[in-house]
Amino acid sequence: MSLADLMQQMGREARVCSRVLRRLPSTKKDEALERMARGLLDNQERIRIENKKDLAQAREAGLSEAMIDRLTLSERVIRDMADGLMEVAALPDPVGKVEGMWKRPNGLSVGRMRIPLGVIGFIYESRPNVTVDAAGLCLKSGNAVILKGGSEAIHSNMVLGELLGEALRQGGLPQNAVQVIPTTDREAVNRLLELEEYVDVIIPRGGEGLIRFVADHSRIPVLKHYKGVCHVYVDEHADLEMAREICFNAKVQRPGVCNAMETLLVHQRVAPDFLPAAAERLRAAGVEIRGCTRTVEIIPGAVEAAESDWPAEFLDLVLAVKVVSGMDEALDHIERYGSRHTEAIVTESYDRARAFLEEVDSSVVLVNASTRFNDGNQLGLGAEIGISTSKLHAFGPMGLEELTTTKFIVYGQGQIRN
Amino acid sequence: MSLADLMQQMGREARVCSRVLRRLPSTKKDEALERMARGLLDNQERIRIENKKDLAQAREAGLSEAMIDRLTLSERVIRDMADGLMEVAALPDPVGKVEGMWKRPNGLSVGRMRIPLGVIGFIYESRPNVTVDAAGLCLKSGNAVILKGGSEAIHSNMVLGELLGEALRQGGLPQNAVQVIPTTDREAVNRLLELEEYVDVIIPRGGEGLIRFVADHSRIPVLKHYKGVCHVYVDEHADLEMAREICFNAKVQRPGVCNAMETLLVHQRVAPDFLPAAAERLRAAGVEIRGCTRTVEIIPGAVEAAESDWPAEFLDLVLAVKVVSGMDEALDHIERYGSRHTEAIVTESYDRARAFLEEVDSSVVLVNASTRFNDGNQLGLGAEIGISTSKLHAFGPMGLEELTTTKFIVYGQGQIRN
Repeated sequence: MSLADLMQQMGREARVCSRVLRRLPSTKKDEALERMARGLLDNQERIRIENKKDLAQAREAGLSEAMIDRLTLSERVIRDMADGLMEVAALPDPVGKVEGMWKRPNGLSVGRMRIPLGVIGFIYESRPNVTVDAAGLCLKSGNAVILKGGSEAIHSNMVLGELLGEALRQGGLPQNAVQVIPTTDREAVNRLLELEEYVDVIIPRGGEGLIRFVADHSRIPVLKHYKGVCHVYVDEHADLEMAREICFNAKVQRPGVCNAMETLLVHQRVAPDFLPAAAERLRAAGVEIRGCTRTVEIIPGAVEAAESDWPAEFLDLVLAVKVVSGMDEALDHIERYGSRHTEAIVTESYDRARAFLEEVDSSVVLVNASTRFNDGNQLGLGAEIGISTSKLHAFGPMGLEELTTTKFIVYGQGQIRN
Repeated sequence: MSLADLMQQMGREARVCSRVLRRLPSTKKDEALERMARGLLDNQERIRIENKKDLAQAREAGLSEAMIDRLTLSERVIRDMADGLMEVAALPDPVGKVEGMWKRPNGLSVGRMRIPLGVIGFIYESRPNVTVDAAGLCLKSGNAVILKGGSEAIHSNMVLGELLGEALRQGGLPQNAVQVIPTTDREAVNRLLELEEYVDVIIPRGGEGLIRFVADHSRIPVLKHYKGVCHVYVDEHADLEMAREICFNAKVQRPGVCNAMETLLVHQRVAPDFLPAAAERLRAAGVEIRGCTRTVEIIPGAVEAAESDWPAEFLDLVLAVKVVSGMDEALDHIERYGSRHTEAIVTESYDRARAFLEEVDSSVVLVNASTRFNDGNQLGLGAEIGISTSKLHAFGPMGLEELTTTKFIVYGQGQIRN
């Protein structure tokens, strides 16, 4: 079968399965998730045999130890995947929830009922455990999913897909509700992006290159985030000790992720007090500071920032620092260089807190808390399938609810329109 | 200035204006809407002079009388546009509404705040009054808008845009919050669809050709509906008199619109009772009936339907009729041929009503009411900017709320992540 035919068939299958999935009661879905979790735990040997093929190829290709580590399905990782499925089973089912019901003057009762999106195309890089996480969230939200992982994880992704499918079948559910594209041919992505007749939404997860490619080539709507250039603004009315804790956490706790702070903005009135001690602690943790002219005056030895540092997503122990004349300059800076991902203010001023929350146009805006809280779990959505920095459909972390939409339901007694 | 430069400039302007608009209190926006309405009423002569240029060109080009009628800005139409703006002013402002606020175990308070989308690109055909309707809805929801109307209405659209802009400026608001693209060059649409840096969403309104073109060429997310192939299913447990009223209304009251019924599905047990009287009334109103084999047996003289009639959007006094063996066949037919727009069941059975509401995957699903109620005003959303039949972001009629999104707001007391 040609690749084009294969992808058409997978799309058709997914659409058929989605019709079954959208009608499943929660208990059926939760049982399936539990069966999937058991399937992974009971077949660790089978998983490891396939995973070793990927690892051998990765070593041959000279991938870094960090990459190989991310690729490895250890006993610990398999257990985590199984636990993840059980956690999704424990989350409330968004499907069928009626959000509001109102009465029209003519007696019609109108409401909005939450329903699955239908078929989700999920395109991702590296870590094979994402295969299981994504499949679990899609199943629970009543969606069929077509998964396209990285070519370096093809054997691992395939065996995980098989085990999930077997668990579905054993529970009397359609095996093809979860399908892994069985090829490393990059052309498969292009074909997937053309299946507008069958696929309702594409979610890419990975580097900016992958996401831009998907966004530029898809005929299907895409939920995406390009990058996180997150700011912390330390206001003149900040509790400076709290500000230092938050900045340290936002930069250092996990610098390689999208919700880490990349730029620190400091009000000029508190900069001389705040910056030296903050910088000392950050530097002790290995952070390189690239500052504006005034920052460099306050922190001896700081490197002067280049224009390219302000919109940069370092994903590393590097921090851009700018002293601003006031909150307006901070807001302007965020508007100009930010990525609409996550922004925090540290302040004790009621007015400033309120204005910052209202005026910053980012998916998560925080007062007196670390940017690292932009995460579905941390914000109380349960597991997340990604973060959206475009505003349509979802803005911010996407949990189960973001994998659904609402339709209008109308109860009448024979009403006609005049 | 080249067209590309012009469009870039319009995009940049819109983005700057959107930053002002998103912070405006409701009273400011409502005052502006009222000022816009007055501006139209006070400048009827100026509007008519420009409108006459379009009408003269339309006559020269040999456009039909119906088209010329749609293009005409009569005193009545101008008053309706002004009234429409006043109605939008009276609607509740969705911006700033906090939808839910919950507490996390670490003490963080997390909520979702409704915010404008930002900049909307609106592409439409014919009726120039859409210029005013769209501008009003975008302003009220805090969005800047770039409008591209049909070339046959260019003078009318331009003068309306100027008057709206003047009203904004007189009220101290940025004039360029509403911009009409000042050219009939079709290339402007292509350039608009590339302004992903400035425009957050594209909403096309018009024929299927326009919408497909926009969807195929846009790098910006598109909210769209292709067509409405709406079904009424008359169940074996229907009140047949009610069913006839609903079917007559759904087909005849306004056959040229997307929420009119195109296909009637009738349970075989009631078909012999139901169809003859229903057909008689429909035919008396000029409706041509194209039926399945069994329909043709029951309604003498009905034309046999071709396969192409089942997925057809007639937008005319034509009705496809099929006798089905039961609700399952009706659901299968809707799944196969429907457009996810609007579907209705007529039944007195609690079970059937409940199952139909849950299982039909359309933007509006009704029990015992006409499909003609799929409309923002009729469902209680206030004025609508369009209907979406794709599931992302909005599904069904789009009112003010669908021109917004939510961001997460987080109140902390120094929380950091472990």
